[in-house]
Amino acid sequence: MAKADIPATREDCEARDRDDPLAAVRGEFALPDGVIYLDGHSLGPATHAALERVQTTAHEEWARGLIRSWNDAGWFELPRTVGAKLARLIGAGPDEVIVTDSVSVNLFKLATAALPLARGRAIIVEDSEFPTDQYVAEGIASLTGADLLRVSSGEGANALARTGGVLMKSVVNYRTSLVEDIAGAEAIAANAGGVIVWDLSHATGVLDLQLNAHGAKLATGCTYKFLNGGPGAPSFVYARADVAMQMQSPVSGWFGHAEPFAFDASYRPLEGVGRFASGTPGVLSLSALDSALAVFDGISMGDVAAKARALGDLVAARTTALGLESISPLDSFRRGGHVSVRHPEGYAVTQALITRGIIPDFRAPDAIRFGVAPPYVRFVDVWDAMDQLADILATRAWDRPEYMRRSTVT
Amino acid sequence: MAKADIPATREDCEARDRDDPLAAVRGEFALPDGVIYLDGHSLGPATHAALERVQTTAHEEWARGLIRSWNDAGWFELPRTVGAKLARLIGAGPDEVIVTDSVSVNLFKLATAALPLARGRAIIVEDSEFPTDQYVAEGIASLTGADLLRVSSGEGANALARTGGVLMKSVVNYRTSLVEDIAGAEAIAANAGGVIVWDLSHATGVLDLQLNAHGAKLATGCTYKFLNGGPGAPSFVYARADVAMQMQSPVSGWFGHAEPFAFDASYRPLEGVGRFASGTPGVLSLSALDSALAVFDGISMGDVAAKARALGDLVAARTTALGLESISPLDSFRRGGHVSVRHPEGYAVTQALITRGIIPDFRAPDAIRFGVAPPYVRFVDVWDAMDQLADILATRAWDRPEYMRRSTVT
Repeated sequence: MAKADIPATREDCEARDRDDPLAAVRGEFALPDGVIYLDGHSLGPATHAALERVQTTAHEEWARGLIRSWNDAGWFELPRTVGAKLARLIGAGPDEVIVTDSVSVNLFKLATAALPLARGRAIIVEDSEFPTDQYVAEGIASLTGADLLRVSSGEGANALARTGGVLMKSVVNYRTSLVEDIAGAEAIAANAGGVIVWDLSHATGVLDLQLNAHGAKLATGCTYKFLNGGPGAPSFVYARADVAMQMQSPVSGWFGHAEPFAFDASYRPLEGVGRFASGTPGVLSLSALDSALAVFDGISMGDVAAKARALGDLVAARTTALGLESISPLDSFRRGGHVSVRHPEGYAVTQALITRGIIPDFRAPDAIRFGVAPPYVRFVDVWDAMDQLADILATRAWDRPEYMRRSTVT
Repeated sequence: MAKADIPATREDCEARDRDDPLAAVRGEFALPDGVIYLDGHSLGPATHAALERVQTTAHEEWARGLIRSWNDAGWFELPRTVGAKLARLIGAGPDEVIVTDSVSVNLFKLATAALPLARGRAIIVEDSEFPTDQYVAEGIASLTGADLLRVSSGEGANALARTGGVLMKSVVNYRTSLVEDIAGAEAIAANAGGVIVWDLSHATGVLDLQLNAHGAKLATGCTYKFLNGGPGAPSFVYARADVAMQMQSPVSGWFGHAEPFAFDASYRPLEGVGRFASGTPGVLSLSALDSALAVFDGISMGDVAAKARALGDLVAARTTALGLESISPLDSFRRGGHVSVRHPEGYAVTQALITRGIIPDFRAPDAIRFGVAPPYVRFVDVWDAMDQLADILATRAWDRPEYMRRSTVT
């Protein structure tokens, strides 16, 4: 990270925005006026294409087409066709990704199905992991009798080396934004006879992921963050072709059957990752996601990742100048698409920012997370947001009763 | 079933439609012109309210409200608020139903979590059961080591009496429309120490279900059929309050946690049925469903069920007169919201009907299913559809190459 590359003035930011190879993409988003949106790591904004697609799916395909749209509008194919579009963004083959269920359900299916492939019957999860990953690990251990190994942050791969088993691990930590080394961890797993299920929720759409090249076998992730699929948009499953063929999904629903409409008495799984589908797919959400992915057509994930690094460097430099401690790596190559900084009254500071139209988010106990989604966040946006943050801190504008933490967090 | 009640002329049908207590509800549906829709048992049509809600959720709540809508638009509450609306339709308490995941995933969660409650470690499923139920039963047996007992049609409760275990059973059979006696089966289960997981997919929104009164403990079902929630709308889970408290969902995701945003390290399930939630809910689909349920506001499920019986009787009478064999019960109290009749060229007959704007559906090998959803199907609709069917059979209009079965069924 060359410090010289970090804009030092608003004019520098304008210049960077002019030179941005992704500049044109911002126009695809239906961003509200007067808002600087730095929460794409939690819920990505709507694109015009996604909004139009929702309209078309509801009014044309559902209301007019009715049942015929399962065939005529390609509803049946959506889990696979959307999966194929997503595959390019994570360095997977087009037949290695499907869109189905939620991250929680997919973590359950993949980790449970991975147990028989691993030497050692253990589920490993780090204590800094996103809560649902930890809870799902607990549930699998309780159901299957596998040992639950809850290890400290960063110790997952080492534990895998010792005991084998299945490690559930985020590529980008939801709180710190720290990036895990996929290739390094997979090398350890290969030596240990262990299997890693990657959670790409905070990584997809912001890093230049190369799952195949880096040896990743199994992954899931969410599509409503940096992929802008919409609130609660379905999750995806990646399973490397050769690995999928050895696996049996515990949730063997009809959409994972080789011929769901043959109405066979016995389950016969689809070839490859398709076997991790289960029930009837949510067509409205899948359609919105399908169109939202058009943002990434014709742009390079290398450019996306480079801009995320540069925007994150700007957040880091300016918050450091304000005396805020970053809990995110300062080395931009070890950081995902958000930068988290600590403030003892972080909740109130976040509320004060929101009042001024700057939307980051907050994670207890004291982390303000600034998301820098490359397709729509500009350098000037970060600059202006940091100006507001500086003013709020200088004037203690956060110190108002209505900004104080509510008794229940929702 | 008094035969005298069956309309004998189109004028009789018009009179019945005038007297129909549900007549006004039909106006809430956005039905396309020139179509008689008899496939509500597969995909319910859109209501104006649902279409408007999708628009509002996408354009206002998502695009403008962004992350704030999780609180401000009540997104967090949707699984429970929609569940509470649905509870009235199935005779459950408002806190005993949540909307989450798909039927396949919910069958998996409920039946797996029910195993420890049952005497005997077996999963029982009938060979006439909907495929996904059979496949999920297979998957659970394979995962947990429980015995899989696949018994013949109608033998589920008898098997439960012999072996205990967990029976997965549809209240309305997808093919024959035969209604199961919930209270009778629950009495057998109680004696045997067995547990029944009811699949209400083809029953909800068309029968006057009384789950609490009839002793049902656990159920799931789909919302895109007679509840008109939209293509792939999420499923619901019913768990009687006292039963839920004894159960542990195998898929312990963060939305089933007592305080998902406390980010506790350990899983602590919600009180009651809420513990069967798992991942982030699909807001677009849940919102559409929420508004779609307005159809049932202020109408009696007794009236709904009575009209379904009467419409079904009309289908049965006219198809019998055409010499078609019904595989659905002729006793309307033993029949759900569709009537299935056999024809050796059923697929081609169905295609010929669709060409004329009559939309039933077909299930291999030879069943034409006519769905009679009370909120929008009129007596005259059934009459006119049967006239077309009569003409198609009399003229062999189905006997055209383009109506013949395709080599792959989708």
